Amino acid sequence: MVDTRHFVVIGANAAGLKAASKARRRDPNMRITVLHKGHFISYAACGLPYYVSGKVSRQDALYSNLLGVPRTPQFFKKMKGLEILTHHEVTSIDRNDRRVAGRNHETGEDFSFEYDELLIATGAQAIVPRIPGADLKNIHTLQTIEDSEVLRRLVGKGKKGVIVGGGFIGLEAAEALVERGVETTLVEKADQIMLALDYEMSVIVKRHLEDKGVTVSTSDAVLEFKGDDLGNLKQVVTEKTTLDADFAVLGIGVKPNVALAREAGLEIGLTGAIKVDERMQTSDRNIYAAGDCVEMRHLVCDKPVFVPLGSTANKQGRVVGINVTGGRETFPGVLGTLIFKTFDMNVGRTGLTEKDARAMGYDVETVIVPAHDRSHYYPNAKLIATKLVAEKKTGRLLGAQVVGMGDADKRTDIFAALINMKATAEALGNVDLAYAPPYSSPIGPALTAINVLRNKLSGDARGISPMAVRRKLEAHEDFVFLDVRNQNEYDDIHIEESVLIPLGQLRERMGELPKDKEIITFCKISLRGYEACKILEAGGFKDTKFMDGGVFTWPFELVT
Amino acid sequence: MVDTRHFVVIGANAAGLKAASKARRRDPNMRITVLHKGHFISYAACGLPYYVSGKVSRQDALYSNLLGVPRTPQFFKKMKGLEILTHHEVTSIDRNDRRVAGRNHETGEDFSFEYDELLIATGAQAIVPRIPGADLKNIHTLQTIEDSEVLRRLVGKGKKGVIVGGGFIGLEAAEALVERGVETTLVEKADQIMLALDYEMSVIVKRHLEDKGVTVSTSDAVLEFKGDDLGNLKQVVTEKTTLDADFAVLGIGVKPNVALAREAGLEIGLTGAIKVDERMQTSDRNIYAAGDCVEMRHLVCDKPVFVPLGSTANKQGRVVGINVTGGRETFPGVLGTLIFKTFDMNVGRTGLTEKDARAMGYDVETVIVPAHDRSHYYPNAKLIATKLVAEKKTGRLLGAQVVGMGDADKRTDIFAALINMKATAEALGNVDLAYAPPYSSPIGPALTAINVLRNKLSGDARGISPMAVRRKLEAHEDFVFLDVRNQNEYDDIHIEESVLIPLGQLRERMGELPKDKEIITFCKISLRGYEACKILEAGGFKDTKFMDGGVFTWPFELVT
Repeated sequence: MVDTRHFVVIGANAAGLKAASKARRRDPNMRITVLHKGHFISYAACGLPYYVSGKVSRQDALYSNLLGVPRTPQFFKKMKGLEILTHHEVTSIDRNDRRVAGRNHETGEDFSFEYDELLIATGAQAIVPRIPGADLKNIHTLQTIEDSEVLRRLVGKGKKGVIVGGGFIGLEAAEALVERGVETTLVEKADQIMLALDYEMSVIVKRHLEDKGVTVSTSDAVLEFKGDDLGNLKQVVTEKTTLDADFAVLGIGVKPNVALAREAGLEIGLTGAIKVDERMQTSDRNIYAAGDCVEMRHLVCDKPVFVPLGSTANKQGRVVGINVTGGRETFPGVLGTLIFKTFDMNVGRTGLTEKDARAMGYDVETVIVPAHDRSHYYPNAKLIATKLVAEKKTGRLLGAQVVGMGDADKRTDIFAALINMKATAEALGNVDLAYAPPYSSPIGPALTAINVLRNKLSGDARGISPMAVRRKLEAHEDFVFLDVRNQNEYDDIHIEESVLIPLGQLRERMGELPKDKEIITFCKISLRGYEACKILEAGGFKDTKFMDGGVFTWPFELVT
Repeated sequence: MVDTRHFVVIGANAAGLKAASKARRRDPNMRITVLHKGHFISYAACGLPYYVSGKVSRQDALYSNLLGVPRTPQFFKKMKGLEILTHHEVTSIDRNDRRVAGRNHETGEDFSFEYDELLIATGAQAIVPRIPGADLKNIHTLQTIEDSEVLRRLVGKGKKGVIVGGGFIGLEAAEALVERGVETTLVEKADQIMLALDYEMSVIVKRHLEDKGVTVSTSDAVLEFKGDDLGNLKQVVTEKTTLDADFAVLGIGVKPNVALAREAGLEIGLTGAIKVDERMQTSDRNIYAAGDCVEMRHLVCDKPVFVPLGSTANKQGRVVGINVTGGRETFPGVLGTLIFKTFDMNVGRTGLTEKDARAMGYDVETVIVPAHDRSHYYPNAKLIATKLVAEKKTGRLLGAQVVGMGDADKRTDIFAALINMKATAEALGNVDLAYAPPYSSPIGPALTAINVLRNKLSGDARGISPMAVRRKLEAHEDFVFLDVRNQNEYDDIHIEESVLIPLGQLRERMGELPKDKEIITFCKISLRGYEACKILEAGGFKDTKFMDGGVFTWPFELVT
């Protein structure tokens, strides 16, 4: 062996093993040692909710490769030439001597390794809130294989489960629990679930959960977990109520495991995660960090963020593997892209939400555009709602949220690709996306949303958000809230404060409307709403607007 | 009315009606007249195969709006304020007098209209080949509602149908016919179906058609259609055989309807379609043209192309509608993006194929990377094969082809978005695409393909295409063609000229291989093939390569 350099990796999941494998492929002679605290390595943490639900039926599917071979240390030894030591917990890093030390929990012996390059891939840990009773039995996070095994035993028909936290782990857990027959209640402290979405988009998701039988209680914090004499959870006491519970799932987020790095004196970022540069180097150039324990740059707003995801961990691991073997590779940052499935609904976002963007001082234009995911006459065409956020001054697209039963993941990725390239709305209206009836309508939901945005940015269309309409209603402002759908659509469901004139009658009946008042039009998805605006403008009405998203995305009460 | 300008549109399908509707929304006072030769307007031509198959069950679904209201001239009058005259065939354009003239086929009367601005949206026409017997009964194109009605009557269990042409209309028709129980043969003159794909990608599609029971005969031209005394088709005589046939579907392409434009002296482009600028103006600035009758710029190679598609027609119509009402909007061009479904397979492409790119003189690097469309442990994960074509010198992505049972349409659109933004492979490896197990693997098929491409461009990985391997085999070159899959995978299916050493045994058994010979490795999808290459390199083998795409995309014979 010519190369006697030693690359030590702490943590044998996504980032750590990707880095080690990549390094090995690039340098067959380098010594590589991966130290892992636990038993299971290289497991698909993102797959755990599907193991709980039973969609993934075997535990070993979560850590097997394409051919069904379990990714054990032996597997990595034989196939990738990697040395992986499980049950090896690193407890300290000596940067002067370039040495890590710790304990082998199987043998009880201490170990110590010199390194030339070190990777900290210690991941993140599910947060357990400081609430009385949080240490009772049957309260679990959903982060490890062990967690999922326990939950599989706890779920069952007629059981009562409480999920604490309406983030994506909470929502994926909700689906798993309901599929297993559990009476499920989700409690969320904020006034909306999925804080990663804007309020009105989160309401679409909330309604879907409720349709599927989940009780969702927002603006409601858990105050106490109550147990019986055996220490088993029995009740969850919240601000609003007391829930009987056979078990609880905690989904309130994760925090990066930074203790090792902090004790070694490495710089910790503003988000509380380890600070790294584009090459994934920490403040010590011989120490890299990657995966769920590091903070990263947000490519839209250029601020540090903490968005731990398996996709990012893999990419960062690859970058480290290249850099420790003499390459020069960078990980520029993230867009905060998220996707998740909850029951039949697909929920995606990328870039900044309106809320985020405004908080950062951007002057934004937004649109909410529901549209069918494929040609409306093709079987199983479904609506998805797209919200776009753009900077008014430049037209630059800042973020997208796509929610619905239809193909939202494709549109999320299209927007991620475009936002990644710093595209403006102007540049996007004519992108040659793929069209055939099974896959899209001719212009498609993504470009339709972009075109509405362009119309708004250019002043060609005047829209108003449902949130702004709501504020007007609450302030009892004097305006006409004009529904232009058909009578039967109106009878089926409508907004209480609205009046109805179907679009087809509008040219004849516009005399019924006052010319001196503001008129806000809408329909189911606001396509007819926009059309109505234009008809009224042509008829001499000066102050007309259409409401974004129509009835489909109206986030407040509806009369049925 | 202040505005007395008259906007005349010839053709009431995608481009024409989009332009008229947009113009009306922007200018309520403009006089707009749409002249249409036929009876049906605004129908979804792309939906016709699904109407023949029965997936779309009602004819009026093809020309109804979201609410099921048929888009008749009355509908457009009431809802959009447009005047549409059907059965009005325009036969001449007088550019000096700005006047169109023609005949109303319902009344038999001539008509004439002055225009201020004219739009030619005359579409394209299915090509009927000059073959003896092509005028027999039961030989049909699939372009109009009338065509599809006839075909619906002709299809049926046990009937024999011949499809001429293996383009996407031919392939969509094949699915429709088989679903209706027709014994289907597809005859294609070229040596591959789907000339819009590279050869090896087209083979994946061909195999799928064959799996579904379609007889596919490539490199085979139709010589004659033979009929009975009543003039009904009975046999199709090809270069290779004679096929009994109850009917035939012609799917050999379309040609733009340019007669009116040519007679009016407007410039016709190199492709034979009407030449327009970015604003969709013809060589006469008062005359616009849009939709299937115009040529457009290819955004990758900057050459004029003729790619008639409903999506493009809609976008161009929108541009015309804006420009005739005082706006300044442009249609920059297309990427040649195509998507279609044939049975369970999704087939997409965007940008240039390798074939196209080489013919244009680009020095290209290519990869073929099969990968699962979602986490492999998630139910219904399916393989898709991605072929990428990049310019060697610059790393600029020139084209992508994505084929498989999995979610190929999403990846096609991701690549379309990226190629549209003129992205290089370098810039793409870390795009923050959406990941969760139901939607993608952590890195995902698109970025995996890009990473393999980057490895090749940087010299980090040496690959060879299946086509190049085939040429070596045919030239009886002396090399080792090394399959590194497992024994049972090999027993199931393999390439005749290959030898087997499973990857797990390679480190021990590499002594069996000659160090002085070229070694080309592969597996099912060439992930293990790449790994094997790296192991051999580490073992001192100097001349190793992995074969792109593995057994999954090997386009030649396989031993089962």
